[in-house]
Amino acid sequence: MLDVCLLGTGGMMPLPYRWLTSLMMRYNGKSILIDCGEGTQIAMKEKGWSPKPIDIICFTHYHADHISGLPGMLLTMGNAERTEPLLIIGPKGLTKVVGALRIIAPELPFEIRCLEINETWKRFDFEGFSIEAFRVNHNVVCYGYSLVVERAGKFQLDKVLELGIPKMYWSKLQKGATIVDGNVTYTPDMVLGEPRKGLKVTYCTDTRPTDSIVQNAQGADLLILEGMYGESDKLEKAREYKHMTMYEAAKIAAQVDAPQLWLTHYSPSLTYPEEYMKDVKKIFPRAVAAKDGRSAELNFEED
Amino acid sequence: MLDVCLLGTGGMMPLPYRWLTSLMMRYNGKSILIDCGEGTQIAMKEKGWSPKPIDIICFTHYHADHISGLPGMLLTMGNAERTEPLLIIGPKGLTKVVGALRIIAPELPFEIRCLEINETWKRFDFEGFSIEAFRVNHNVVCYGYSLVVERAGKFQLDKVLELGIPKMYWSKLQKGATIVDGNVTYTPDMVLGEPRKGLKVTYCTDTRPTDSIVQNAQGADLLILEGMYGESDKLEKAREYKHMTMYEAAKIAAQVDAPQLWLTHYSPSLTYPEEYMKDVKKIFPRAVAAKDGRSAELNFEED
Repeated sequence: MLDVCLLGTGGMMPLPYRWLTSLMMRYNGKSILIDCGEGTQIAMKEKGWSPKPIDIICFTHYHADHISGLPGMLLTMGNAERTEPLLIIGPKGLTKVVGALRIIAPELPFEIRCLEINETWKRFDFEGFSIEAFRVNHNVVCYGYSLVVERAGKFQLDKVLELGIPKMYWSKLQKGATIVDGNVTYTPDMVLGEPRKGLKVTYCTDTRPTDSIVQNAQGADLLILEGMYGESDKLEKAREYKHMTMYEAAKIAAQVDAPQLWLTHYSPSLTYPEEYMKDVKKIFPRAVAAKDGRSAELNFEED
Repeated sequence: MLDVCLLGTGGMMPLPYRWLTSLMMRYNGKSILIDCGEGTQIAMKEKGWSPKPIDIICFTHYHADHISGLPGMLLTMGNAERTEPLLIIGPKGLTKVVGALRIIAPELPFEIRCLEINETWKRFDFEGFSIEAFRVNHNVVCYGYSLVVERAGKFQLDKVLELGIPKMYWSKLQKGATIVDGNVTYTPDMVLGEPRKGLKVTYCTDTRPTDSIVQNAQGADLLILEGMYGESDKLEKAREYKHMTMYEAAKIAAQVDAPQLWLTHYSPSLTYPEEYMKDVKKIFPRAVAAKDGRSAELNFEED
């Protein structure tokens, strides 16, 4: 239903056998990419997914390891004869950064629309889902993102029959439309039960732990956080460069009682993230040291 | 002596298991890179070579597949605490292109010097070798490059003794210095025999066949040319997009009687370049369909 693939798990620079951190999601016919570093298009092809149908690219911030793959990605999308517009979302400065990088990708067969985030929190609504951006704490302006799928209540046949709502309106009301028929107004809540649990993925790299992460990760089915360092003596370094250790990420996951935590954005010095998982799991047992290409399919709960 | 590694062999876009075309050479303590596409820094690490000591980067042209890896490469060199200046050579517009791409690599611990080529042919002299740039014929301004190592003649002890040149000057004269001692002038030709055969690598992608390639490939020990297409029906496409087929590259190698030809810069549609080598070798038997990481060590001939 909601397909998620962590295309890469590296921070700072791409390495042989470790792509830069980037998340691709597919829901309701739309493809969403968060960050696009050097090599992300190759990671995507390795996964067997195509760059052509990407509808939205969200950037957390403009450090090269999160955006250096953009010109190549745009050209590959163009070479695949994409013509639909592409939406790019990112912190202030987006238009300028994308414009500068396009010096080597000036001609594209599709339009690019840039949406800059100036607020500490911002919600973007799409058909069937929304993207929420929340400010975090890095050494440049940086955002985390949640993809949120809301799920309406179940169709209540008993109630609908009781209220005598004409059958021709049922489907439209179920899809959320309000209908005025003469002097009678029908609203979706007349045919639907209580909203049901939807789906939520929260993704955040390049930050110190913040309250905004805890607030925005509430209710996430999948939490993806950076675990830049695992070595016990690297906390100072994490503080200095405004990154998070694997233990700090685990503490956030424990605080919000996430169903699962994937760690990513490892420092190039962190060769075997698994090495530290025993200690990480003491803080949060459902933590996983993700590897490139880790995927999940998230589905609505059975009624 | 002269180490050569073709880091990648792809054109247009990076693919899983095929890096973008780029050549690294090492000679006399200097490292030279020609082109730097998305992923070139990873290819370099796979080879076991470091980006830190690169002294010179030459760009053939500014299509993204030849330059998109520059910001990441610069940052990785910076992260390795490089402080020596880096020289970048390329066609007109270099300063502007490098400047724009550096929007995501603004702070580096080393200086970048840009040398723009405005001529159809230009020679750059370094310690012990030179780089020659020659204009070719692509749909944007594009250059091929030769790395040329000249080799002085052998030290002629008999002649030196006969001329009575003081021993203290021998080594300096052998290294090319001219020495004035009172009213006597000693020149290198007094101690050296005829210049000996040096080393030469000629590299050229993204062009139609041109006289300039033939002229500049004369005497090359290793000729590296693009063979974008192998399929017999792709000549029209090669003409339209200003590329070379494998057969056209082989004809040039035959014309200059090159000791060896490496083909590179394959179209993503060319999955198995080897498939066409039987026909290519009919034109030029010493042609090789190079794969990523193909290397050679070129040495001076024995005296």
